[in-house]
Amino acid sequence: MTLEKKNMAGRILLLLLCMNAVSFIVNAVPQTCPADLGGKCAEDDDWEGEFFPGIPKIKYEGTSSKNPLAYKWYNAEEEILGKKMKDWLRFSVAFWHTFRGTGADPFGAPTKYWPWEDGTNSIAMAKRRMRANFEFINKLGVDRWCFHDRDIAPDGKTLEEANANLDEVVALAKELQGDKIRPLWGTAQLFMHPRYMHGGATSSEVGVYAYAAAQVKKAMEVTHYLGGENYVFWGGREGYQSLLNTDMERELDHLARFLEAAVAYKKKIGFNGTLLIEPKPQEPTKHQYDWDAATTANFLRKYGLLGEFKLNIECNHATLSGHRFVICHHDLETARINGLLGNIDANTGDPQIGWDTDQFMTDIGEATMVMLSVIRKAGKADFEMLEKLAKEWGEPKVASAKQELAEMIFQSAL
Amino acid sequence: MTLEKKNMAGRILLLLLCMNAVSFIVNAVPQTCPADLGGKCAEDDDWEGEFFPGIPKIKYEGTSSKNPLAYKWYNAEEEILGKKMKDWLRFSVAFWHTFRGTGADPFGAPTKYWPWEDGTNSIAMAKRRMRANFEFINKLGVDRWCFHDRDIAPDGKTLEEANANLDEVVALAKELQGDKIRPLWGTAQLFMHPRYMHGGATSSEVGVYAYAAAQVKKAMEVTHYLGGENYVFWGGREGYQSLLNTDMERELDHLARFLEAAVAYKKKIGFNGTLLIEPKPQEPTKHQYDWDAATTANFLRKYGLLGEFKLNIECNHATLSGHRFVICHHDLETARINGLLGNIDANTGDPQIGWDTDQFMTDIGEATMVMLSVIRKAGKADFEMLEKLAKEWGEPKVASAKQELAEMIFQSAL
Amino acid sequence: MTLEKKNMAGRILLLLLCMNAVSFIVNAVPQTCPADLGGKCAEDDDWEGEFFPGIPKIKYEGTSSKNPLAYKWYNAEEEILGKKMKDWLRFSVAFWHTFRGTGADPFGAPTKYWPWEDGTNSIAMAKRRMRANFEFINKLGVDRWCFHDRDIAPDGKTLEEANANLDEVVALAKELQGDKIRPLWGTAQLFMHPRYMHGGATSSEVGVYAYAAAQVKKAMEVTHYLGGENYVFWGGREGYQSLLNTDMERELDHLARFLEAAVAYKKKIGFNGTLLIEPKPQEPTKHQYDWDAATTANFLRKYGLLGEFKLNIECNHATLSGHRFVICHHDLETARINGLLGNIDANTGDPQIGWDTDQFMTDIGEATMVMLSVIRKAGKADFEMLEKLAKEWGEPKVASAKQELAEMIFQSAL
Amino acid sequence: MTLEKKNMAGRILLLLLCMNAVSFIVNAVPQTCPADLGGKCAEDDDWEGEFFPGIPKIKYEGTSSKNPLAYKWYNAEEEILGKKMKDWLRFSVAFWHTFRGTGADPFGAPTKYWPWEDGTNSIAMAKRRMRANFEFINKLGVDRWCFHDRDIAPDGKTLEEANANLDEVVALAKELQGDKIRPLWGTAQLFMHPRYMHGGATSSEVGVYAYAAAQVKKAMEVTHYLGGENYVFWGGREGYQSLLNTDMERELDHLARFLEAAVAYKKKIGFNGTLLIEPKPQEPTKHQYDWDAATTANFLRKYGLLGEFKLNIECNHATLSGHRFVICHHDLETARINGLLGNIDANTGDPQIGWDTDQFMTDIGEATMVMLSVIRKAGKADFEMLEKLAKEWGEPKVASAKQELAEMIFQSAL
Repeated sequence: MTLEKKNMAGRILLLLLCMNAVSFIVNAVPQTCPADLGGKCAEDDDWEGEFFPGIPKIKYEGTSSKNPLAYKWYNAEEEILGKKMKDWLRFSVAFWHTFRGTGADPFGAPTKYWPWEDGTNSIAMAKRRMRANFEFINKLGVDRWCFHDRDIAPDGKTLEEANANLDEVVALAKELQGDKIRPLWGTAQLFMHPRYMHGGATSSEVGVYAYAAAQVKKAMEVTHYLGGENYVFWGGREGYQSLLNTDMERELDHLARFLEAAVAYKKKIGFNGTLLIEPKPQEPTKHQYDWDAATTANFLRKYGLLGEFKLNIECNHATLSGHRFVICHHDLETARINGLLGNIDANTGDPQIGWDTDQFMTDIGEATMVMLSVIRKAGKADFEMLEKLAKEWGEPKVASAKQELAEMIFQSAL
Repeated sequence: MTLEKKNMAGRILLLLLCMNAVSFIVNAVPQTCPADLGGKCAEDDDWEGEFFPGIPKIKYEGTSSKNPLAYKWYNAEEEILGKKMKDWLRFSVAFWHTFRGTGADPFGAPTKYWPWEDGTNSIAMAKRRMRANFEFINKLGVDRWCFHDRDIAPDGKTLEEANANLDEVVALAKELQGDKIRPLWGTAQLFMHPRYMHGGATSSEVGVYAYAAAQVKKAMEVTHYLGGENYVFWGGREGYQSLLNTDMERELDHLARFLEAAVAYKKKIGFNGTLLIEPKPQEPTKHQYDWDAATTANFLRKYGLLGEFKLNIECNHATLSGHRFVICHHDLETARINGLLGNIDANTGDPQIGWDTDQFMTDIGEATMVMLSVIRKAGKADFEMLEKLAKEWGEPKVASAKQELAEMIFQSAL
Repeated sequence: MTLEKKNMAGRILLLLLCMNAVSFIVNAVPQTCPADLGGKCAEDDDWEGEFFPGIPKIKYEGTSSKNPLAYKWYNAEEEILGKKMKDWLRFSVAFWHTFRGTGADPFGAPTKYWPWEDGTNSIAMAKRRMRANFEFINKLGVDRWCFHDRDIAPDGKTLEEANANLDEVVALAKELQGDKIRPLWGTAQLFMHPRYMHGGATSSEVGVYAYAAAQVKKAMEVTHYLGGENYVFWGGREGYQSLLNTDMERELDHLARFLEAAVAYKKKIGFNGTLLIEPKPQEPTKHQYDWDAATTANFLRKYGLLGEFKLNIECNHATLSGHRFVICHHDLETARINGLLGNIDANTGDPQIGWDTDQFMTDIGEATMVMLSVIRKAGKADFEMLEKLAKEWGEPKVASAKQELAEMIFQSAL
Repeated sequence: MTLEKKNMAGRILLLLLCMNAVSFIVNAVPQTCPADLGGKCAEDDDWEGEFFPGIPKIKYEGTSSKNPLAYKWYNAEEEILGKKMKDWLRFSVAFWHTFRGTGADPFGAPTKYWPWEDGTNSIAMAKRRMRANFEFINKLGVDRWCFHDRDIAPDGKTLEEANANLDEVVALAKELQGDKIRPLWGTAQLFMHPRYMHGGATSSEVGVYAYAAAQVKKAMEVTHYLGGENYVFWGGREGYQSLLNTDMERELDHLARFLEAAVAYKKKIGFNGTLLIEPKPQEPTKHQYDWDAATTANFLRKYGLLGEFKLNIECNHATLSGHRFVICHHDLETARINGLLGNIDANTGDPQIGWDTDQFMTDIGEATMVMLSVIRKAGKADFEMLEKLAKEWGEPKVASAKQELAEMIFQSAL
């Protein structure tokens, strides 16, 4: 038996590390590029040649490969614990991180430019980006992507105009998706536009509440149209800056009614995907209502919404909330034992920085803990499976203390 | 209308400041005193004269009083918003803070000695302390106290011995209580004894679980016998140090069954007091299961215990959990809107220190927020009431307590 | 003796509260306004009538005034402890907070618009803003302002163009300043432009280092030309994201040489103002080299720069560094006892939020601590002075500002 | 070339992991054991047989060993980068962690008992512990230990008595040390006794200051007598709880004079060891004067003590101060580039817990960063050395992604 083959267990642990390789870490805020690039910005969506020229399809080449653009551990078709690697974790390219980030921060202007960006947010530009997205996805060999409505298509002066823009870009996406690719999830961006400065579903303005609802309705329709598996709610501004001018109880009532309406609409249009809520404790608000998994579970129980939603746990958000055993393991387990573990954004952040940095997870210890929750959720953590896993590690084969440690941890965790 | 009368509003705000005046800030850990005080430690409970000689009964003397041992704002019988001050907030003397603290910390030996302590934890000593307690309560003019079983009576080598010790001291307490005084709450100390090193209701040892249950049963009986209004669960070690060796789901199941049994026993013995859970995020464990109000509410809902428990919100605990708008206002409001606001430990701590300091609340801004939740809970926050309150403040009248405090601080700083 | 007069002490404490009233809390990032306001944006700097029409000059009206646009405690000419209020603390209008903030955040587009903004950053627009600035300053009755070079004038494609733009706007400012108004300080903005993404004086690119030096040289010249009292260094990006790719020692050497050159140039041009360094622990970098007062003092000592610099302590920055007794008192005292207390940005932030919020200081306890450091620095904290101060507070006299504030909060909370 | 041999690089990284294996993590507070163990506590220091019976001398057995009590990576005599492993890092057994900890915490009684403890702190007991200490050291094959004066010998009612106790136990230690073993450092415990409740060198009581000086004098003498390499100052209570009642400047002056006197005495008695200061931001005080490396460096520079002291960086302390790139790397580098890196307590803690947990470092990423500072300090980080190190890792030999990662990090760090 070769060393290569025996290393099945190591691969599972590395799945998560690999997963991160598919999305770039960039700033979350889409911004337009400088106005003086106009010359190269035709109003049609021509773009000569490839977006990523010279980059072939990324392949699995094994751990001995020195090719920086190769999978060394992730072998999509290989089976581990009775499941293919690609089925254990379904990688997804995040459109905004990958194509709309600019490298700006609150103290600095954009630092990152794609050659195909023309400084506008026109429909033509949106379509060109969408082509880049699918070239990227195909070269990675991934078959899931995710998006906010306003990332992929320009906003409009009216809801009708915005919806029409979205429809035009979505039609292209549908065509480019082909047979295999589909959204892991879609969502509506309810935080960038000034109308949402005090939230969408928890805004004190009824007009804003209604606009948010209409935007979610449309985003759910296009997610359904594209064959999306999930629809996500991330309530960036569904929270407060101060309790002195906030009626928390009433805002939570409004939020619950908003979500009830979303459930009803989902059923009406026959969308069978899962509705996910993504907890985050704060930023941009001082306090977000979906603080962490337990807080969100309480909200769902209180309002009778438990069966209708699951959670999308983002590791860096868990870090910010102070529940951080090996980063987000606590929140994953809380979600799991409440029957709410729906999806994972397995990123990482700095435990001493008070804002979300959305970095790649690079620590195998953290990745092991995340994978452990995934395996447990699959009901795969039975003793035979784990004994098998442990045995593969149990022989004096490779000289890594860390692996030895991981094994010890893994065994003790069962 | 006198200046005195107009100041009704200021008094409400100060209620909380006053409330803290009844318990001393001391270290939470009862310890025995050095062995060489033996000479003055008779094995009977004689103690000559008063415990606090020369201190008369503390009275309300108004804001112009210069007497440091007088109430300046708290006038027990005065009505504010249709309720007497003493009924808005029922002050309670905490036995352990007041009589069992030693001023020790993890790096230092005890620094505080009561003249009546003889260095032992004998029954005689326990009775002497109980007499001190009631002299203190009577001099303060307060009519509530609270206790852990092991603060007030020595532990025993067996459960029977421990229970007998408790009975003997409780009989004296019953006698000293008289007609008016009774416990605000009682509780069982399930964290000091080494057997509880991994928790009581969530210990992995069935014997420990059983012992904890027996101890709670007895503590509930004596609380009932003394006429207590509430029974408190604070799960100091009901949590984990590491998820690697903890089955969180199973431990939570055990905790729920433990609490169910407590509810059943409460009904069996006819105890009509409220059962309270006191959330705290961590310390001494890395993670306590009752992390905050929302987490505890989720737990109660999940296990069908919602109607049987309320929460005892301790402000300093809320600070540690990161929910801290004007310290603990967020957790108070979360408890209130979940129908769970049962009791308040209106202390304060340092937002930059990672451990519980159990200090007096001295900031009028914080106290205002706490009082606001109390008034709202009473359904008193209607507009007429509040307009009345606002009007009384609207005129340039008298020195506020805050000014008094600022002055005090300024002087001490020079 | 009137009640009014006796309240001298209260006024000192309130000086700081007032001081904050002169700058608006806005987002730190200047941004352009939407492109479709074009119609009203003439390329000359005409602006009809006043910028703040209907707002008269703000006056001191005493504590009984109900006018929201009146000074109630700050009476500029009144003497306290032998010094006029206006000389104890010299208020300064921050140009960027007041005129260039847009209310954007990392998750949201701008939410705040001035009617005179035309969506450009043209010279004409810059001049119009400068006129607004001086109308604001004159109406407040303040005589200091402060600025970054890039706030007040547009950047250019070359250094020459940027300098020429700056000269044109500065000439207007000089004219509008008149006899009395002058900068408290000027500075160079070395963080917004992409060239500074890895710092200015600590950038790994020698060209960036040189550009930063040239920009500081010019900013110091115009500060000198306008009669500025201080020149400030805030090293937003002088720090690191990771030590793995940073040679901290070498970067600190570069920073020291940069500051030495600034000292030499200051002497060469005869600028007698104080050079100030503003510590901040982090944001936007993971670690800023000027972490806090003690770290900066160590740096100045190590490189023999101690006599040439003082510190500009920003309270909210101190909060972020974890030194926070009554917010920034620790850092003020550390600066003072190292002989380095130069200037104060007496703002406040939230102790549980990990980013700078630059809010008004509204707590009289915090303000008292800040004022205490100011008085001590003036050598005024001798016993006779303080006894006098204490005596004035010793009697039951008038409504304090705090009571006023508490009332305001209470009302807004209902 | 065997896999074993090639793995030299991995061993360097593991040195730190191993190092921790020599001290047990226990509570820092020495406490006496229950009084009822009297029967087995003879007043002589007899102890039958071995303290650790059945445990042989721990040996290096290589990575394939399954023996839990074997060194798998640490091969004391093996050379790496031109130095033996035992010379790169000189392991030291901490007497208090290993022999005086009880497993108590602020909420719990002791949970850990050594069979040889008799519940007293008699001289006989102290000698018995010292024998256990040297059996432990010898079985580990380590040749350094460290201690506080009050760990190893009982305190006395007078200074003379305490010194006499210390002399008696030290005489035994000297005898047991033999030729090879000696203290890495000694120190005086200036925090447990109630007299030090407000510090030693910064106490407001002159008598306490004097007593602290006398205790340091004696501790330095015995460290010298035992051939110690360093003498450590850890100022547990040299800080403040509140600036309102603390004259920070004066306390720092006192501290400086205290340290000057220590330097003078060191020279007088011919002690050539290094004086070390161990920074810690807080706990038990709200603020400790030796907050971090930069703060301590500033203090040393200000008072002209720079050449006389170095720092003892404890990783978990650095975590508490917020400087935490890969835990304590920032503080190690700050100490190093200020010429102050003297000693390392390479432990770890939880970044989300606000107190010192003194845990073993188990993460190879952290250990790599610590080792990097050690190598840089030795001037060994030149390119040839590192190229050699990198090459050894550069071949496809062992299947550890983590090792690959470590390599990448290591290379990028140079």
